[in-house]
Amino acid sequence: MPEKVPDCLFCKIVTGEVPATVVRATERTLAFRDINPQAPTHVLVIPKEHYANAAELASAADALVSEVLLEAHAVAVDDGIAEAGYRLVFNTGPNAGQTVDHMHCHVIGGRQMHWPPG
Amino acid sequence: MPEKVPDCLFCKIVTGEVPATVVRATERTLAFRDINPQAPTHVLVIPKEHYANAAELASAADALVSEVLLEAHAVAVDDGIAEAGYRLVFNTGPNAGQTVDHMHCHVIGGRQMHWPPG
Repeated sequence: MPEKVPDCLFCKIVTGEVPATVVRATERTLAFRDINPQAPTHVLVIPKEHYANAAELASAADALVSEVLLEAHAVAVDDGIAEAGYRLVFNTGPNAGQTVDHMHCHVIGGRQMHWPPG
Repeated sequence: MPEKVPDCLFCKIVTGEVPATVVRATERTLAFRDINPQAPTHVLVIPKEHYANAAELASAADALVSEVLLEAHAVAVDDGIAEAGYRLVFNTGPNAGQTVDHMHCHVIGGRQMHWPPG
């Protein structure tokens, strides 16, 4: 299992060192509200283990990738937006605007989303 | 394995009935350029099998979810944008603007992406 990364904001949210509005948790995932929401529902779903991005997670642990996506869907169900629809966004690297290098899935919905996606 | 869906545009791309600019293929995935690109790199990575959306795929087949993400990363490497960064987008339902109900991962990059993601 990957080590906790000392300077990682999301590792600190996992340990409770930094507070967050947690909406769901499993043994291996955590879902919490984005502090700068871009829509009525804007939640981040992360693996508690530290992976830098989606590709690194996918390389390492098949079942955990699926669990992140299923938890993202569960967030949408919990917020009552699953039927209307929601967008999942994974940013990798600076051009995508990834600001925390701990893999996270944005769950965004509760409004009509536009195109292009940023 | 899910059946091909007769009226599904992406099932028809998988069979070759509808043409597409294919950039990568594995036994179970296909990657092709979006016909209405929103950035220098805009590729769709799909499972050849028909799943309606990310949650349905995640429910059904762990390894295939990872393969879609790894192929998405491989597209970014092939296009020379992996280091600079890229965005992955999964749309589910009408509010997200999902236009083809065959699960697909948008790989978008080659420019600075903006926030919010649509």
